[in-house]
Amino acid sequence: MKLYIGNKNYSSWSMRSGVLLAAFGIPFEEVMLRFDFSPGSDWHRIIPGVSPTKRVPVLVEDDGFAVWDTLAIAEYVADRHPEHAIWPRAPKARARARSLCAEMHAGFTRLRTVCPMNIEAFFPDIGAKLWAEDEALRADVARLAAAWSDALAASGGPFLFGAFGAVDAYFAPVAVRLSRFGLPVPEAAAAYRDALLAHPAVEDWVAEALREQHFVPEDEPYRTTR
Amino acid sequence: MKLYIGNKNYSSWSMRSGVLLAAFGIPFEEVMLRFDFSPGSDWHRIIPGVSPTKRVPVLVEDDGFAVWDTLAIAEYVADRHPEHAIWPRAPKARARARSLCAEMHAGFTRLRTVCPMNIEAFFPDIGAKLWAEDEALRADVARLAAAWSDALAASGGPFLFGAFGAVDAYFAPVAVRLSRFGLPVPEAAAAYRDALLAHPAVEDWVAEALREQHFVPEDEPYRTTR
Ligand SMILES: N[C@@H](CCC(=O)N[C@@H](CS)C(=O)NCC(=O)O)C(=O)O
Ligand SMILES: N[C@@H](CCC(=O)N[C@@H](CS)C(=O)NCC(=O)O)C(=O)O
Repeated sequence: MKLYIGNKNYSSWSMRSGVLLAAFGIPFEEVMLRFDFSPGSDWHRIIPGVSPTKRVPVLVEDDGFAVWDTLAIAEYVADRHPEHAIWPRAPKARARARSLCAEMHAGFTRLRTVCPMNIEAFFPDIGAKLWAEDEALRADVARLAAAWSDALAASGGPFLFGAFGAVDAYFAPVAVRLSRFGLPVPEAAAAYRDALLAHPAVEDWVAEALREQHFVPEDEPYRTTR
Repeated sequence: MKLYIGNKNYSSWSMRSGVLLAAFGIPFEEVMLRFDFSPGSDWHRIIPGVSPTKRVPVLVEDDGFAVWDTLAIAEYVADRHPEHAIWPRAPKARARARSLCAEMHAGFTRLRTVCPMNIEAFFPDIGAKLWAEDEALRADVARLAAAWSDALAASGGPFLFGAFGAVDAYFAPVAVRLSRFGLPVPEAAAAYRDALLAHPAVEDWVAEALREQHFVPEDEPYRTTR
């Protein structure tokens, strides 16, 4: 199967699916559709034929069958690979992991808006300014830290439910944002952030993102050039 | 278990979980937390103790264990009730149903913003005006109609994957919006909209919504009074 993704540097949703598959060693072919929204670009030429929502990531089977959206991709992979604990095995932990993924999927909108993922760029000054001025951002991070701390206290860590799973892949881009914008979090959340950043599948994704060196204006509220 | 919901007239997310449980005859106690966001309201008094996101719906087990977010609730119910086809039994149809739910969960934002659910109110004139002027709304509805038509053509209907399931509960509030705002959709999508509105669990929800007769200013962009 093929996983179509966007730029590794910017595409936080792509990262969730890519890291999940890599972390469990599930074989797939990665196809990068570079973010280039100018008329006639490869993106515009290819995306309508592979992704019904015209977004990435999308997982495409050899027969052309497409599974779109990170959450549906996680469930599909879990269905197809019952040998892997993509979700926690214990029913309550599994439900909790899914609640957290769903919350991430439609929530934390302020964090996502003002601190977009940009793996190669460090914005500590902008982060400090946002932190001082933006109450909604602080509320998002407070909720995140509370949710993480609860799960970590119950599981003992190092990942939210012990071993690495889909929910951790889901929070990997959040760990990047916290680190790139230097947003302060309590100790337990900071340890989890660092565990995420040190996971081999995350490290690999980050390393490849750094090699891209493409500047995408649409994803750059804080820079005019690399 | 208890399902905490908001006003049936307005709370499209509550409707998804409520209709799902009712359609499959799964016993639960419904607790309505009326939308009243004034200081000291029941909402503000009760919601922090039951819902980690301070949102509805939330499913709470007798031991206090909470499952929040409609998508996680659907998965939890499916996990706990394998005897019910909450998701389609065929793996590809199941993946497709989940892709559609996930797309709804984070998407169709223009439709959701300009045509909020309001079961008791009919806004055909506003719907016609929006339809004429709002390209993003038309794009959302076009995508919806395409996704529905594809699934219905493959399954033969009357619901997206044949029998009623979680994905149909997910689109029930959308059927209400289309009907209340009189938005035009192609024939196959219109037949599905009507099948949703005629489902007993949807009809019951709508009937109870009509009995509420509460006016919630925060959810009323188009009226100043009932
Ligand atoms: N809810 C989707 C979100 C996907 C998404 O927004 N992808 C972005 C890239 S990170 C995209 O494709 N943007 C291009 C566009 O919207 O044209 C998911 O979870 O997969
Ligand atoms: N992604 C959530 C959305 C839940 C949601 O937005 N619920 C609304 C009511 S329909 C709510 O609780 N609003 C009250 C608030 O935000 O204070 C889900 O799928 O359950």
